[in-house]
Amino acid sequence: MTSYAQEVEVRTDGSRAQGTPAVGYGTPDKTSPLGPIQFERREPGPTDVSIEILYCGVCHSDLHQVRDEWNNTVWPCIPGHEIVGRVTAVGAEVTRFQVGDLAGVGCMVDSCQECESCKAGEEQYCQNGFLATYNGPFKADGSNTFGGYSDHIVVTEQFVLRIPENLDLKAVAPILCAGVTTYSPMKHWKVGKGTKVGVVALGGLGHMAVQIAAALGAEVTVFTTREDKMADARTLGAKAVVLSTDEDAMKALKGTLEFIIDTIPTRHDVNPYLQTLAHDGQLVLVGALEPLEPANNMYMATQRLGMSGSLIGSLAETQEVLDLCGQHGIVAQAEMIDIQDINKTFERMMNEEIHYRAVIDMASITREQRA
Amino acid sequence: MTSYAQEVEVRTDGSRAQGTPAVGYGTPDKTSPLGPIQFERREPGPTDVSIEILYCGVCHSDLHQVRDEWNNTVWPCIPGHEIVGRVTAVGAEVTRFQVGDLAGVGCMVDSCQECESCKAGEEQYCQNGFLATYNGPFKADGSNTFGGYSDHIVVTEQFVLRIPENLDLKAVAPILCAGVTTYSPMKHWKVGKGTKVGVVALGGLGHMAVQIAAALGAEVTVFTTREDKMADARTLGAKAVVLSTDEDAMKALKGTLEFIIDTIPTRHDVNPYLQTLAHDGQLVLVGALEPLEPANNMYMATQRLGMSGSLIGSLAETQEVLDLCGQHGIVAQAEMIDIQDINKTFERMMNEEIHYRAVIDMASITREQRA
Repeated sequence: MTSYAQEVEVRTDGSRAQGTPAVGYGTPDKTSPLGPIQFERREPGPTDVSIEILYCGVCHSDLHQVRDEWNNTVWPCIPGHEIVGRVTAVGAEVTRFQVGDLAGVGCMVDSCQECESCKAGEEQYCQNGFLATYNGPFKADGSNTFGGYSDHIVVTEQFVLRIPENLDLKAVAPILCAGVTTYSPMKHWKVGKGTKVGVVALGGLGHMAVQIAAALGAEVTVFTTREDKMADARTLGAKAVVLSTDEDAMKALKGTLEFIIDTIPTRHDVNPYLQTLAHDGQLVLVGALEPLEPANNMYMATQRLGMSGSLIGSLAETQEVLDLCGQHGIVAQAEMIDIQDINKTFERMMNEEIHYRAVIDMASITREQRA
Repeated sequence: MTSYAQEVEVRTDGSRAQGTPAVGYGTPDKTSPLGPIQFERREPGPTDVSIEILYCGVCHSDLHQVRDEWNNTVWPCIPGHEIVGRVTAVGAEVTRFQVGDLAGVGCMVDSCQECESCKAGEEQYCQNGFLATYNGPFKADGSNTFGGYSDHIVVTEQFVLRIPENLDLKAVAPILCAGVTTYSPMKHWKVGKGTKVGVVALGGLGHMAVQIAAALGAEVTVFTTREDKMADARTLGAKAVVLSTDEDAMKALKGTLEFIIDTIPTRHDVNPYLQTLAHDGQLVLVGALEPLEPANNMYMATQRLGMSGSLIGSLAETQEVLDLCGQHGIVAQAEMIDIQDINKTFERMMNEEIHYRAVIDMASITREQRA
């Protein structure tokens, strides 16, 4: 039924596809630390773009996935879906990229192109399941996909993004996931000039959300539990910052916001935030892909509030947010790491010690010996 | 700030307002059974309509309120907000009603008329709190409101509804709450011809929802736990009926519905129903005004599903749904009871033994002696 491009690298039976040697950082199971893994990328086909990876953002999803917190990890797992790099080869039918161009890859590397969602340009909601950049769905041939914690990647042209030339390249990578994940719902729910937007949690997603919402003209209120992040919130563009532990401040916000992006990446209580929404307000969950604490419909019904989930964004939206960031000079606050420090970085991410997005300098992977 | 019409009857300090003697069925606290209570309604003012109550529906909210399950009950509590009757007096400025007309009263008897919601014709979302037909908000003078489990009621004309002449009057009463509560979200979310609508639970609200959705041209699927209700669901207009305990049947519905009205009146798990929604589908909770079981954002995010609360409906929507029911010959399946059987009826409602709405024949209240 579906006609995905083949993305064969290591088969789960251990055999190898024909291809180019590659090296990545991943893990063979959910308890081992990440370490170097050698594999093969496919040779670029006619519509493919081969990209030398320069930088890759570290998303909380990477941690969820390698620890199998969604119970769907395919091993070995090499994460990474905030990829920027330089084109090293293009297939004969590729028209938008040439060797030497900057290029980006986000959370998807293919989708069926046949379903209603794909036809509507919403590949992230592909009814047959888009092919994720890593941990792609089980396919008939048993193959997996490997992400951006690696030296290069081969992706069909349609799923490769153009990168604005004016931005600090190493801080661009997080736009590919953290950026578009917060931009997509803002676009869908028509956030614009003067919209009263709340951003819950100032982490990787949240700090992009604040900048993007402000660029769209919204009045942004940030909710954080961290007093030490309050000044940063304002620097990033927030008009107001509230400690969510401050009951009086929370009460003062009751019924005032129109739209909230909730970026908390784990199970939590949405009710304190629901209560800050005005009539017909909408809270969109982009972080926690898991059961939440019980939502109280007493709050929701009495002002017809809504709560929705939203998943990453479409290719078109990804290009839009990249261009928007280019126009407004928006990038992530990137903390550069070497790939060898990824396990320590995961720990620090768990402890909320990253300000605000770790980005791997992939030059560090050349230290790894290839087989 | 707000300019509610006075609805003074018994003051909470025990003193009585001037007015006309009235008798109702209510309770002085949350554990006592309902019994006769004498009180006074105000004399009709210039804009008031006085209505002899002929029938009053028994809503699950009545039970929640008298048992103080929302922790906001003002005692004594005389419930009832599905009221139909006949006009016995009108104030000098009343233009839409005259003595002898049929008239209806739903969940609201006043609102501020000044806030954005009221100006937009959405009195149910009045930012200053609408005045409920019973258990009205605490007002400065400490007064309460008493509902339709009583012989008559006095309501400002604007909050009195016209009743279609062609319907079986005793079965019309539930349209005033059960009808509009399910109609309002269908209108807001644009349910129409061909919309794939799910109705969760076939009780008082659910059996109205099925008829109204079918009248709007929707394709209705009913979810029930009761095999004995499956045939009724089809008679009421459902195209499909599913036992929510039948895992295979539930799985077959995965990703198929566009809009779900969830009428379960108590805490429950929404996840099985969320999973039957298609991309951008919406589940609207109209029953349970309380915390739900944890919703799983993995389901919500992956297809951008939404979950909202919705509260009763506006005056305009109430008139619209009454008229719609008139055009399509829709009424509740009413099980007539005498007011003296109300406590037994509450028990039977708890045990899901009512098919599908109990309606009090208010002629029975004349048996009560007035002081």
